[in-house]
Amino acid sequence: MKRRDFIKFSMFLSAGSFVGRTFAGEKDLKPNFIFFLADDLGWGDLGCYGHPKVKTPNIDRLARQGTSFTSFYVNSPVCSPTRAGIMTGQFPSRHGFHTQIFGNPRRVKEMKIAEYLDPDVVLLPRILKRAGYETAHIGKWHLAFHGGTSPPRPEQYGIDFSRTIEFDKDKIGTGWKEHRSSECFADQALEFLKQRDKEKPFLMQLWFNDPHNPYYPTNEHLKAYPKMPANDKMTKYWAIITEMDKQIGRILDKVEQDGISRNTYIIFSSDNGPGDPSDLSANEIAALGSAGPFRGTKGSLYEGGVRTPFIVACPGKVPAGRIDEKTQISGVDLLPTFCSLAQASLPENYKSDGQDMSEAFAGKVQQRSKPLMWFYPIRYRAATINQSPVLSILDGDWKLLTNPNDSRTELFKLDTDLTETDNLVNQYPDVTKRLKSQLLNWYRSLPANTIEPGAGELTFPWPGEKWDAVTESLDN
Amino acid sequence: MKRRDFIKFSMFLSAGSFVGRTFAGEKDLKPNFIFFLADDLGWGDLGCYGHPKVKTPNIDRLARQGTSFTSFYVNSPVCSPTRAGIMTGQFPSRHGFHTQIFGNPRRVKEMKIAEYLDPDVVLLPRILKRAGYETAHIGKWHLAFHGGTSPPRPEQYGIDFSRTIEFDKDKIGTGWKEHRSSECFADQALEFLKQRDKEKPFLMQLWFNDPHNPYYPTNEHLKAYPKMPANDKMTKYWAIITEMDKQIGRILDKVEQDGISRNTYIIFSSDNGPGDPSDLSANEIAALGSAGPFRGTKGSLYEGGVRTPFIVACPGKVPAGRIDEKTQISGVDLLPTFCSLAQASLPENYKSDGQDMSEAFAGKVQQRSKPLMWFYPIRYRAATINQSPVLSILDGDWKLLTNPNDSRTELFKLDTDLTETDNLVNQYPDVTKRLKSQLLNWYRSLPANTIEPGAGELTFPWPGEKWDAVTESLDN
Repeated sequence: MKRRDFIKFSMFLSAGSFVGRTFAGEKDLKPNFIFFLADDLGWGDLGCYGHPKVKTPNIDRLARQGTSFTSFYVNSPVCSPTRAGIMTGQFPSRHGFHTQIFGNPRRVKEMKIAEYLDPDVVLLPRILKRAGYETAHIGKWHLAFHGGTSPPRPEQYGIDFSRTIEFDKDKIGTGWKEHRSSECFADQALEFLKQRDKEKPFLMQLWFNDPHNPYYPTNEHLKAYPKMPANDKMTKYWAIITEMDKQIGRILDKVEQDGISRNTYIIFSSDNGPGDPSDLSANEIAALGSAGPFRGTKGSLYEGGVRTPFIVACPGKVPAGRIDEKTQISGVDLLPTFCSLAQASLPENYKSDGQDMSEAFAGKVQQRSKPLMWFYPIRYRAATINQSPVLSILDGDWKLLTNPNDSRTELFKLDTDLTETDNLVNQYPDVTKRLKSQLLNWYRSLPANTIEPGAGELTFPWPGEKWDAVTESLDN
Repeated sequence: MKRRDFIKFSMFLSAGSFVGRTFAGEKDLKPNFIFFLADDLGWGDLGCYGHPKVKTPNIDRLARQGTSFTSFYVNSPVCSPTRAGIMTGQFPSRHGFHTQIFGNPRRVKEMKIAEYLDPDVVLLPRILKRAGYETAHIGKWHLAFHGGTSPPRPEQYGIDFSRTIEFDKDKIGTGWKEHRSSECFADQALEFLKQRDKEKPFLMQLWFNDPHNPYYPTNEHLKAYPKMPANDKMTKYWAIITEMDKQIGRILDKVEQDGISRNTYIIFSSDNGPGDPSDLSANEIAALGSAGPFRGTKGSLYEGGVRTPFIVACPGKVPAGRIDEKTQISGVDLLPTFCSLAQASLPENYKSDGQDMSEAFAGKVQQRSKPLMWFYPIRYRAATINQSPVLSILDGDWKLLTNPNDSRTELFKLDTDLTETDNLVNQYPDVTKRLKSQLLNWYRSLPANTIEPGAGELTFPWPGEKWDAVTESLDN
């Protein structure tokens, strides 16, 4: 698919209106940051990103007030490493975050993955705290496994106000059936905004559980889809997104009421692509999100697994109603970008894998100077077409995927092939060689790891054959 | 994906054991045919086709007793035309079956589709009836729209014993919530087998509603998946397949009890690929089947939309436990094949688009002499990656897809690229030219038709844009 097929914008977004200066009378404070991160929401799962049915009026409002990026990349197709990439500004595999943290000690050892994020590395909240910020983290954490072990608590990462679903102290809900997690998280966020030190700028991370399955939306939000059967899983999926959206609306209202809109960057994104409906390895299978036009879902290195919505708003600082289709932004860019906006200097010797993209926030198309790289060594247990190799690199419009054992190599040119179906390896041997070499060098620099049998390969059981690996993992 | 990746069979299927002669003492009757057709069951949705979790012990039993084909193609990616192809031995578009029959007269007119299958054309049941067969059709019909109009009844097509969900006379159930449709259909099939004229051979078509959504399995079959949440849609999907499988088992038992196994060809297949979980145009959306390794689902001309399981058993006539990976069989072949096995001559001037594949039934790899062609002019409203062009042709291992407006052309070589991701148009201009010309000539020979706006194109809403066509169709 060619990008030009898409470039037909409706007029529902207002024309960009960019005011570059702060208004007289506003305190020249460092800016605040509110960072909403959804869980397993796909690139295509928002009204403002083109979903024809799902209702997200508050996130759409944010998009009208700010800028939406169509090429935002998280640094992993699954939860924990994406979060580690945001927190550290470095590719998560550098920290042993090859996949999400889970509670099976045998498997953690086998896969050689970290059990928690090292609290002594350079971290976004700690840098901002040192720069005078008050910091809060509310909701999902998932930077440690917390069953039976005693991993570091959020305050060890530079968090002042923590309300997570994971730690006994300050614990809030479990996020699923027993609690309406998004509402519960928003309550805590409002509490933070009320009690915070008004003399200080703040960073508030609000990381949702929604719309990760299972879905337990309220009747109120199921009724938002009157033409859909209420007990259909798709209805529930859309309703739980609408529920999260409503809670985001409460925060947006509060920011406006407090008069801090023009000094508060509000960001919305998601941690990875949507769960795949036929993912046989999931605890509660069959998530139902949309990856938009892209190949791949959660767990795949194709675009649909790692490309997520990214909206940033800050009236007066970020152009309103703009859609940036040119600038590639990534999770690892957020630390240097936020620090730049906060005029917080980065520690000596610290090297981010990302870069300061604050000019893109301000409305300028920004060219990356650094490629993005991914490593994800877990077997994909859903639609074969979405099984990607375990390594990938994105350099401008070129994207190359490969396996360390050289079993597959694919080269795509995203500006003319958004769906990643036209493998150009044979047409562009020089580009292939250059990117592959760069990617494999990076892979060899990573901490020890294990590639799960079958990961990165196109495999599927054939008549007469059972897919034992899946059966085993499901029986565990 | 290369086919060789798959050719690793487990030993759970017994080695082929083929006995070519009939046993002494058996009457030298013409063979019977029992044709089970599932609704929206995917290529990957059976235990014997490699599904790691779904339980289909009776269909697996049939596979052990007979031969499974990995390259069986229905002649449409949706319901009605596939059935018309089976009934007529001709590509359904020749009969104005460009898509499924539906009950919106304005749309029928717009799309220029037939409202029912012409009862005067050459038809499988009628040919067999004239050759001395008793014929029965039980379950889903869907060769006419029956709300408000008075389409021809099954007897006008050569059916002696009809029990369908569609006609007031002899109506059985509606097949969904209020009835356990597969059980209800099997009851009727057993009734036919009991009351049939034992001196005559028979054709019995048992066309299920399952596992088409919505799913209302019984608790008995939900309990077959004790590790799965009972209210998960995937559990329900698997359970409803297991429920259909149980009913098939009742028929298999009856055939064995009646001592007619060695003279009865029992066939199992499905009418198209699995419903797509994100199909926004479906009444009850989010079906959850598996297309196995293939790209595409119901409504797509990629393999996953048109390649379905095909098992044929007849002890002594069809090799047991064999898996045929070489022979391509299609729905349009069934009329000439059944007629050949029944020694029923085909009407003069009749030209099937299929061919007699009875040697393949008997265990010989058979090469097709005729290509297969498809036309499906409806916009695909789910995962972009599965949006195929509206025309396709399969000639040996070459598969070409294109649009009449020349907007897309794709050429795949299935023996080395089962997932249809390596477009070879530029590498093989001669093959491309030849197949495209053949396909477009065929298209120009078809009855009048309309191509729905957007059909065959890779389209998806982009941020700021709404997918109006979908919204409209959903609001209708």
